[in-house]
Amino acid sequence: MSWTKTPIRGVLLDITGVLYNSGEGDGEAIPGSVEAVARLAASGTPVRFCTNETMTTRRRLVEKLRRLGFDIELDQVFSPVPAVVSELRRRRLRPFLVSHPDVAEEFADVVTMNPNAVVLADAGRHFTYEILNEAFRVLITNPDAVLFSLGIGKYYKDADRLTLDVGPFARALEYATSRKAEVVGKPAKAFFETALRDMGVEPNDAVMVGDDIVNDVGGAQKCGIRGVQVRTGKFQPGDERHPDVKPDAFVNNLAEAVDEILRKKEQA
Amino acid sequence: MSWTKTPIRGVLLDITGVLYNSGEGDGEAIPGSVEAVARLAASGTPVRFCTNETMTTRRRLVEKLRRLGFDIELDQVFSPVPAVVSELRRRRLRPFLVSHPDVAEEFADVVTMNPNAVVLADAGRHFTYEILNEAFRVLITNPDAVLFSLGIGKYYKDADRLTLDVGPFARALEYATSRKAEVVGKPAKAFFETALRDMGVEPNDAVMVGDDIVNDVGGAQKCGIRGVQVRTGKFQPGDERHPDVKPDAFVNNLAEAVDEILRKKEQA
Repeated sequence: MSWTKTPIRGVLLDITGVLYNSGEGDGEAIPGSVEAVARLAASGTPVRFCTNETMTTRRRLVEKLRRLGFDIELDQVFSPVPAVVSELRRRRLRPFLVSHPDVAEEFADVVTMNPNAVVLADAGRHFTYEILNEAFRVLITNPDAVLFSLGIGKYYKDADRLTLDVGPFARALEYATSRKAEVVGKPAKAFFETALRDMGVEPNDAVMVGDDIVNDVGGAQKCGIRGVQVRTGKFQPGDERHPDVKPDAFVNNLAEAVDEILRKKEQA
Repeated sequence: MSWTKTPIRGVLLDITGVLYNSGEGDGEAIPGSVEAVARLAASGTPVRFCTNETMTTRRRLVEKLRRLGFDIELDQVFSPVPAVVSELRRRRLRPFLVSHPDVAEEFADVVTMNPNAVVLADAGRHFTYEILNEAFRVLITNPDAVLFSLGIGKYYKDADRLTLDVGPFARALEYATSRKAEVVGKPAKAFFETALRDMGVEPNDAVMVGDDIVNDVGGAQKCGIRGVQVRTGKFQPGDERHPDVKPDAFVNNLAEAVDEILRKKEQA
């Protein structure tokens, strides 16, 4: 296959829809994915996990993945919350948080009094009319207030049902306040670059495997990283003829992608 | 003033922010507006009320306005709900309703089983994550399902606070489902035209007075109706330098607009 013609020295993996599907309790591992991650590790290929998951802390996410059988360390996981926390600190911004209570501990050191910014995470059922109005008023009463959106995903699969992600709510507040959100997380270039830097791998030596054709595959490609689309998670048949994004490859699942990466590595 | 150079043979009025401000209980009449409506009626000038109010029935809205002192009849009021009900019937569409329970009676005769459309009204605190997800799933599972938005307003003033209107939620579902909403109500041309036809008045003989520069003033102007912006309701100083819409006039309130209309009428 053409996507493995040049060497792959580092692998970026999306988590939800690639490693496992969320749902009741811990959700369930996608068949072959636990072994695929273990085989990559055994081959000595550096791996980082790039997730837009913001409904829970990285710690809780890693604990859940370990219960599902994945051999994964906290410092391999890159998620938007730590990234936005450091951005808020750097720019001395005080956010109004639209987020799930389960992620509160990651914002514990952030000053939120008298807010001059809004951070939209995946708040799930905590996306209430009241909370959205509070966020709206922070923005509409202060033209300089910054709107951060942790990812801009349209929807994801939860317990076999497609479910609204943070992106639609960002678009709602953008429209209401006539301003543009700053995206932290995929598909922002800085997010992929941070994970690559941590592996010491150049973009054209890396591959990103994801189920979101725009945010995983298209986002990676814009950084010069190969983008591989799995047919698991939120994948829809229509993605194979997406108007804007042409993945470097489609694979049925992560196991198939890893098969190909390791086959090439053995040949080398 | 130039906006009254040619005769005004019919007047369209927005309700919220022009006649009254919503808020606790019935809200309150804007000073001078009760008398202004009475003076227009006494002068024999035809008047219709074009509102995007969809959180309550026309009947309840008219009852409230009468309690506030306005002399107004049900059949003078044009609102999006009756308009969308007739559109659904004409196209044999079965909607999933995102709306406030107070408006349910207007949809009483509409078949909602096995929905192939979504109608977004101003649901207020009934814009919940669960309801928005249900609407999203109707649309995402059926590429032919139609999304109707009853107006596309960004926000309105409620009890002195700016509050999210239906528009941001329409944008959210548009983004999530990659489709465009059909707008019923202002600023849709058909909506203004229905009210004009009811008065038997041509667009260039009419004026629309509203507090929403895009939906009232800009919408009317696109139909060839003069658009007058009041400095009450949701008006913001920034509206005076709006990038897209240049009102035919700014007036401090409805009373001032009616003064000018009647002064010209007496001269004629």
